[in-house]
Amino acid sequence: MKIVETIQEMRKWSEEQKCDGEKIIFVPTMGALHEGHLSLLREGKKHGGKLVLSIYVNPTQFAPGEDFEKYPKNLETDSAMAERCGVDVIFAPECNEMYPEGYQTFVEVEKITNMLCGKARPSHFKGVTTVVAKLFNIVRPDIAIFGKKDFQQLVIIKRMAQDLNMDIEIIGYPIVRENDGLAMSSRNKYLNHNERIAAASINKSLRTAQKMIEDGETNATAIVSRIESIIEESGIPRIDYISIADPQTLEDVDKITRPALIAIAAFVGKARLIDNLHLK
Amino acid sequence: MKIVETIQEMRKWSEEQKCDGEKIIFVPTMGALHEGHLSLLREGKKHGGKLVLSIYVNPTQFAPGEDFEKYPKNLETDSAMAERCGVDVIFAPECNEMYPEGYQTFVEVEKITNMLCGKARPSHFKGVTTVVAKLFNIVRPDIAIFGKKDFQQLVIIKRMAQDLNMDIEIIGYPIVRENDGLAMSSRNKYLNHNERIAAASINKSLRTAQKMIEDGETNATAIVSRIESIIEESGIPRIDYISIADPQTLEDVDKITRPALIAIAAFVGKARLIDNLHLK
Repeated sequence: MKIVETIQEMRKWSEEQKCDGEKIIFVPTMGALHEGHLSLLREGKKHGGKLVLSIYVNPTQFAPGEDFEKYPKNLETDSAMAERCGVDVIFAPECNEMYPEGYQTFVEVEKITNMLCGKARPSHFKGVTTVVAKLFNIVRPDIAIFGKKDFQQLVIIKRMAQDLNMDIEIIGYPIVRENDGLAMSSRNKYLNHNERIAAASINKSLRTAQKMIEDGETNATAIVSRIESIIEESGIPRIDYISIADPQTLEDVDKITRPALIAIAAFVGKARLIDNLHLK
Repeated sequence: MKIVETIQEMRKWSEEQKCDGEKIIFVPTMGALHEGHLSLLREGKKHGGKLVLSIYVNPTQFAPGEDFEKYPKNLETDSAMAERCGVDVIFAPECNEMYPEGYQTFVEVEKITNMLCGKARPSHFKGVTTVVAKLFNIVRPDIAIFGKKDFQQLVIIKRMAQDLNMDIEIIGYPIVRENDGLAMSSRNKYLNHNERIAAASINKSLRTAQKMIEDGETNATAIVSRIESIIEESGIPRIDYISIADPQTLEDVDKITRPALIAIAAFVGKARLIDNLHLK
């Protein structure tokens, strides 16, 4: 397994693979790998070809005051995990490689970035789409795989790829969870013992909502208010949003009569945690 | 010569060329071809490989009230001219092919788009970079050629390609002029006889400015005010801007001590005309 730090070297490697007729499968991450990321890599391996993992904590997707500075970093542990998953190349550039002096170009998806997490983090997705567009141009993947925990991000990346005519298949892969249902996240490391216990209520509330819908409830307000009480009862003091939305437009729905997304963001200790359930 | 109207067919053709080891040279235009465009195509031919011309009047770079609706269109004449220049493929998509329902992604270069023409046309360059990014992803050129008449556009496209790590060489090609010095433009068609005569004063003022600088004048204000009187004396009633700027940052300079750009935009009849001179 190779670790590549420069854009030039990464590009050269990808070009060589293309010339050899190899397909390139790409999993972009911010590192601090957990079982969720590894599931994306294992899924990637199934598509054959060469597997590229990027590890880059992208400054443009963090607002001032967010956790950019303290975001967990451990390239050594990450590399060992990646190698065991059969990664061919880790692309791990430095910030001045990705955003040199004079940098001023951004890629922005408009409407769907204003929903859900976009309300609390207004510049977040602009940073995400910009860095992903850059990474796509550098790595030149045929397939890119994203986790469904960041469901909105997945919808936005698909939209960007389609709108900008990027010839890349975007695959969303199911959420991987801890035993008590908590969605795996690099930010779970920020939680203390009690917060970690309380955090499980987020997924518990989603499972309760699913049961309500299976039992015939279609009123979104009733479901949202049930989710709210479950999370509040766990001791989590601050919910960012609970939304039942159309999975494409991400606009709220009042009545659940067709496939819908239930998405939650809550602040638990120093972490902002998200989770969702895609009702088919 | 092939005329291709769908993204899918264009993409397929480009992929085949790449597989055959052919280089792709690309000249994006809005059609209404004149000698300026043809000079770009002839320059393109010199680089070998396959030559692609796009003809697409891009709605997102026109503001409401601008000349999108009446922009000159003549695919038949354009095709004949292109064929004589050795074009291999004309890519001429329809609007619903480029911006289907639900479209919402834009590419934006920030600082340098606020200068010069960006002040009078605040959303123009966002439309330009978006469509060019799309065209680059569809056509997949190795080299793209732009005219230096739209000098700011050229600087912006270079910035975008560099910032977003597009692996494309961007070439700027010198302005082609009428006998009296007027820069060729599809919009010159909007001018009546008297306006056409007056329009020549724009380039005349640039040549006078060049002479002043060669004779030792370094004060930008003095040069700008000389340019202004020449254009006003010709009967052109409305100058948008006259700027002496750094050719990279496009910021105004006070004293001409290093390479500078003199750029002008003026309204002549129904046309907004631009011209520039790049002082080495």
